[in-house]
Amino acid sequence: MDTIDTLISARWVVPVVPDGLTLADHSVAIHGRRIVDLLPTAEALRKYAAATHHELPGHALIPGLVNAHTHAAMSLLRGLADDLTLETWLREHIWPTEARWVSEAFVRDGTRLAIAEMLRGGTTCFNDMYFFPNVTARVAAGLGMRASIGMIVIDFPTAWADNADEYIARGLREVMDAHKGESLISTCFAPHAPYTISDAPLARIRTLADELERPVHIHLHETAAEVARHVEQHGCRPLARLDRLGLVGPNLLAVHMTQLDAEEIALLAARGASVAHCPQSNLKLASGFCEVARLREAGVNVALGTDGAASNNDLDMWDEMRTAALLAKGVAGRADALPAREALRMATLGGAQALGLGEEIGSIECGKAADLVAVDLVRIETQPVYDPNSQLVYAAGREAVTHVWVAGRPQLVDRELVQLDATEIMANAAAWRERIGVQIGEQIGAPAAPAD
Amino acid sequence: MDTIDTLISARWVVPVVPDGLTLADHSVAIHGRRIVDLLPTAEALRKYAAATHHELPGHALIPGLVNAHTHAAMSLLRGLADDLTLETWLREHIWPTEARWVSEAFVRDGTRLAIAEMLRGGTTCFNDMYFFPNVTARVAAGLGMRASIGMIVIDFPTAWADNADEYIARGLREVMDAHKGESLISTCFAPHAPYTISDAPLARIRTLADELERPVHIHLHETAAEVARHVEQHGCRPLARLDRLGLVGPNLLAVHMTQLDAEEIALLAARGASVAHCPQSNLKLASGFCEVARLREAGVNVALGTDGAASNNDLDMWDEMRTAALLAKGVAGRADALPAREALRMATLGGAQALGLGEEIGSIECGKAADLVAVDLVRIETQPVYDPNSQLVYAAGREAVTHVWVAGRPQLVDRELVQLDATEIMANAAAWRERIGVQIGEQIGAPAAPAD
Repeated sequence: MDTIDTLISARWVVPVVPDGLTLADHSVAIHGRRIVDLLPTAEALRKYAAATHHELPGHALIPGLVNAHTHAAMSLLRGLADDLTLETWLREHIWPTEARWVSEAFVRDGTRLAIAEMLRGGTTCFNDMYFFPNVTARVAAGLGMRASIGMIVIDFPTAWADNADEYIARGLREVMDAHKGESLISTCFAPHAPYTISDAPLARIRTLADELERPVHIHLHETAAEVARHVEQHGCRPLARLDRLGLVGPNLLAVHMTQLDAEEIALLAARGASVAHCPQSNLKLASGFCEVARLREAGVNVALGTDGAASNNDLDMWDEMRTAALLAKGVAGRADALPAREALRMATLGGAQALGLGEEIGSIECGKAADLVAVDLVRIETQPVYDPNSQLVYAAGREAVTHVWVAGRPQLVDRELVQLDATEIMANAAAWRERIGVQIGEQIGAPAAPAD
Repeated sequence: MDTIDTLISARWVVPVVPDGLTLADHSVAIHGRRIVDLLPTAEALRKYAAATHHELPGHALIPGLVNAHTHAAMSLLRGLADDLTLETWLREHIWPTEARWVSEAFVRDGTRLAIAEMLRGGTTCFNDMYFFPNVTARVAAGLGMRASIGMIVIDFPTAWADNADEYIARGLREVMDAHKGESLISTCFAPHAPYTISDAPLARIRTLADELERPVHIHLHETAAEVARHVEQHGCRPLARLDRLGLVGPNLLAVHMTQLDAEEIALLAARGASVAHCPQSNLKLASGFCEVARLREAGVNVALGTDGAASNNDLDMWDEMRTAALLAKGVAGRADALPAREALRMATLGGAQALGLGEEIGSIECGKAADLVAVDLVRIETQPVYDPNSQLVYAAGREAVTHVWVAGRPQLVDRELVQLDATEIMANAAAWRERIGVQIGEQIGAPAAPAD
């Protein structure tokens, strides 16, 4: 018998590759950080002596979920201001709050809250864009969480940097160089958006991204108004400007993309660019509808992101998968658009590929990192089980996630976080809420209306 | 001190009436089936001696959720067939399966599974439409669940009845008369849809509904194709035909309504009719988008329903509330459309009013039945709390529901079902899955593809 670190035997394994395959009574063998075998459980028990054996007789084992777009630290602003127009929300609430409060401590505590939430919900990798990305990287690395850290660039000064050159320099030095060689931390360039960055830094990012082979993670075509303003100011749509600057290629991860014409879809497909679809954020901010079914038909790789918790208001990839699968049908007017297995692929391998990690994570295949999630389907909410793919996308939720491994290391066991202290993290979050002070005081301080 | 049965002291009470009010550190006093007081906890502790006192220091206490449209027994068909066009789904999967399997035993086991799921998710009342409504009523009454039982009517023969007259007669005798005087069971007429019922039974239902003061619960304007076919066959849109038959009034609960012009919205408002909005079902079956914001602006009462678990695929009113609030913004193109507090109102009082139960349930007010739900907000996913309304609708989920009372009787305590045996219910569901047999065998029986 071969000696291995961990054997996970599950009722079903959904490897994501090949598409839609469901394996009954299979096991995944893990040694070190990697998946070393995937085979029927009866064989696995003869072949392997595992230091740890997890028997999950009612569970589906799936690849860890990849959140392809978020602003992790903003979880401290969850529900700060909702149900407002995008302009009011940003200008009167989010930006002033960020200007006043965002600091290394804010990013540290917010990222810890976000990682706790993501791990509890089966997310094993997140692609971030926020200030103090050095802190985000440090927190993620310290907790054994996989992250793609966006080196944010924006024309305006913030607590993190004063101008585009300094953003780029700090990013390269304090994020990319500082974490070189760490297998859990990868990096990408994260120019905020075409409307907040001028041509010169965008051109420089293009050169650097090509040289360093890094993804370029950018908000793009989020709303019709943004595209219209760009046409006024630059004489073309944002995607056309990025194309002129040489940024539309396999490195591009275009976030949102609610405004797309047929030529733009063809361009993205031809260049091998990826789109990060954030359906709940797009709905909540009334940004528009991303035509996911048309993108997929054209062959564009689509990843899935929650966006930040201030605009979602959670980092729940289950809800996001379900919304993506449902909304795609509504928008396409076809109930067979974006089937469950394809939504699951977007939330795993689609994200991995968009982040340049397609060889490392995103599916259960030998040689890949052991980023795995066990989902208990023997629950009232997911019974009976005709097709595990359907149950995972349309009926299961974050609460059914029982076990999570990142690079072979357990992060959630029987729903308990291994590396993080949930009580301490919630206390910190509550403390930030007190500090940030707020409108809630006015509401709940109001005299009680008579009850009848 | 006054002696009462139960005192519930919560960090927040969200009574729903008046709209948006959030009361901090308040208590609800229950005696018998009813709410007898709502007051600050400090006062409540001086005023009442309760046989049972629940202290919920991190919870929001809300009215029980009202699922305004479902087919409870179909939970046994959850995930049987997904990602298909409506025609294929109905004609090749759902109808043949129903024709073969629907029986008293099917409805009993399916309804028990559904009630278990609903109670675990904070739903305390459901409005049903299915065959063997006598069984649904008996199961609900036996478990202490509140239900509005639709007396289904359709022109075609099924295991329940042979023709419209027999449907009506069996409904009146075995549902309405059989449960007369039971406070938990109310009844409504449930003509299936304008395209499955001819004028004569619709006219008879109108007369009976007026006489007996019962709601009329009907699928209406679910898809554009259905409306177009109706125009071909009847020379008018379905709502116009119902109006000609005198059915458009305060008794009408029109389900779906994805196809609505301005005049139709005005008609519904003028007549005091209600709409049951089922956003996830509409998306999943690509039925179209219901213009909820316009209905609300016109003053139409809107309730919220999950539809059956075969087309959703769950009975989760949290997900439904969130989808309703998000989708309304996307459809209206305004991020301030359908704020959180209004989505919560739709899921509680909106449903109660649509079912003719507006005086009995739907809000936390003295004299109303004690249908209550406690939601734990001290969780990673809902921290920090700036506004409990936002957290409830945008961040919390069914898993945060810890306690549920129906008419003062505990049904869920610390997430454990009081009246139902979850293990037995899941075993029954699994047995039905084996009996119904299925396509899943083909999938998971396939030889495993090589893993790398």
